[in-house]
Amino acid sequence: MNPAQKILKPLREMVRATTIIESVRLSERLGVRVTLASETLQHTGSFKFRAAYNVASQVPQQEIIAASSGNFGQAMAYACGLLGKRCLIVMPHTSARVKIDAVREYGGEVDLTDVNVKSRAARVAELAREHTDAYIANAYDDPLVIQGNASLGEELAAHEEKFDAVIAPVGGGGLTSGLVTGLRACGSAVRVFGAEPQMANDAARSLRAGHIIANEYEPQSIADGARTPSLGQHNWAILREGLAGIHEVPEEKIREAVRLLFTYANLKAEPTGALSVAALLTAPAAFRDLSVCCVISGGNVDVDVYREILKG
Amino acid sequence: MNPAQKILKPLREMVRATTIIESVRLSERLGVRVTLASETLQHTGSFKFRAAYNVASQVPQQEIIAASSGNFGQAMAYACGLLGKRCLIVMPHTSARVKIDAVREYGGEVDLTDVNVKSRAARVAELAREHTDAYIANAYDDPLVIQGNASLGEELAAHEEKFDAVIAPVGGGGLTSGLVTGLRACGSAVRVFGAEPQMANDAARSLRAGHIIANEYEPQSIADGARTPSLGQHNWAILREGLAGIHEVPEEKIREAVRLLFTYANLKAEPTGALSVAALLTAPAAFRDLSVCCVISGGNVDVDVYREILKG
Repeated sequence: MNPAQKILKPLREMVRATTIIESVRLSERLGVRVTLASETLQHTGSFKFRAAYNVASQVPQQEIIAASSGNFGQAMAYACGLLGKRCLIVMPHTSARVKIDAVREYGGEVDLTDVNVKSRAARVAELAREHTDAYIANAYDDPLVIQGNASLGEELAAHEEKFDAVIAPVGGGGLTSGLVTGLRACGSAVRVFGAEPQMANDAARSLRAGHIIANEYEPQSIADGARTPSLGQHNWAILREGLAGIHEVPEEKIREAVRLLFTYANLKAEPTGALSVAALLTAPAAFRDLSVCCVISGGNVDVDVYREILKG
Repeated sequence: MNPAQKILKPLREMVRATTIIESVRLSERLGVRVTLASETLQHTGSFKFRAAYNVASQVPQQEIIAASSGNFGQAMAYACGLLGKRCLIVMPHTSARVKIDAVREYGGEVDLTDVNVKSRAARVAELAREHTDAYIANAYDDPLVIQGNASLGEELAAHEEKFDAVIAPVGGGGLTSGLVTGLRACGSAVRVFGAEPQMANDAARSLRAGHIIANEYEPQSIADGARTPSLGQHNWAILREGLAGIHEVPEEKIREAVRLLFTYANLKAEPTGALSVAALLTAPAAFRDLSVCCVISGGNVDVDVYREILKG
């Protein structure tokens, strides 16, 4: 057994295999042979558990600190609980009650910060100085995050149907860099595309420029998982050559994709999770008649937001 | 190989394995160690595909006629398409457009009947006289339906965790009789409970009376899959001894269960599909601290109905 196998074995045992869904009606509607790889039923409701568990289980520290108002915070809280480690999640004081409750129910401690007074980054830095024994976890820019998410790429490489393309949401690049890593490690040369909100297209601009470009301000896309300031350095090192391209998706296509997944696949997806299907709606000609795997990255969406999207 | 194995093999290859979901937060919320066995991602979005495919593949007839405005019609249309058989689904002329479209998209022919002039049963009888070569399929009262649904019982019997109880919706009794049959065939003695809308409690009344009792009129429960007039004869023969009991569920608990599945399990369930979780909400003391498998029978729910339920 080589060290890598030893490292990944516990992760593979802990993650839920991705949920593969082939919807005849969705494929007909999209003009593409689409296979959904849904992480909405993963522990804590998103792919983030793969990374969080890998980080929490690999680092020697007994305490993890992370800034996250979303899926990474919940995933890290749950992962730390499983491993008997302490977890402190820094969240803006304006966070929705349900998100704060979720982190706490998964066993994490919440540090509410008034972001009008102090940025979350500043608060994390402050906490890092106080908790010198803690590991400061980044939701995407960390080799351990990429390694954790690579487990999904390995699963897709092992799938019986060989895909012509894999499409996944891109925010900080943690998911796509993990997919590329896992697929390539298993010998798959399948093309991997990113799907990014048009109004938060820093990754697409980075690819075009050949270097990381950051958003000037936090883009208010409904796909809140893609509101990251820029790709991470570790992610960029993989994605600059590893991605076949990025599709930039208008907001309305994201909403339409959420509705299509509801109607034709019985799938509750969060807006960020629907980005890959939104890419098919935005660039149908690019994938016509191909076999495409769309990664649905997560399903944690606020009930009022979801009701509003379903309204159409 | 005995005949039964030979018969079931094609079915097992065709159905999607049920989706097993263990939600920590849902279990905590319910005070029960709950495992969901979700059929929402089954072909055509409900467990009905198991029965429909078994019927369509076992009978020698090349044409199938069935009365159904819901899941059985879609399932039969798709099953017949896979088998190269013709399929005619009798639906009330007032059926929702999306349901008519679904049957047609799955390859079925739709016979729209003005139920003010002629009942669906009368229309089916009329069609049976015209199509003498056709098989008239019943959605629950048929040994082939029970045999098809038994495949789900076999899957649950093979699950690594041994459950203290299995709860499933009961309408005509096709699902529960199949579960009992499949579980017992695999040597499992786990108790199987039905979950039925309080306002459509013909099955519970039948169990108490010791004979089949029919509803006096079609009960307008939001769980439309349980609006059947009564249990079927074939189902009753199994359920009268096979069920450990039936939990009668108020409408509000059905709605609450749909919302809980949305929030804590990322699951889009139709109201009928949420009946088993609604039973846990209705009779928490009966299952406290036990390991319970809740069968979520399907996910096909009208978008406006779903939005209204989520409103709370």
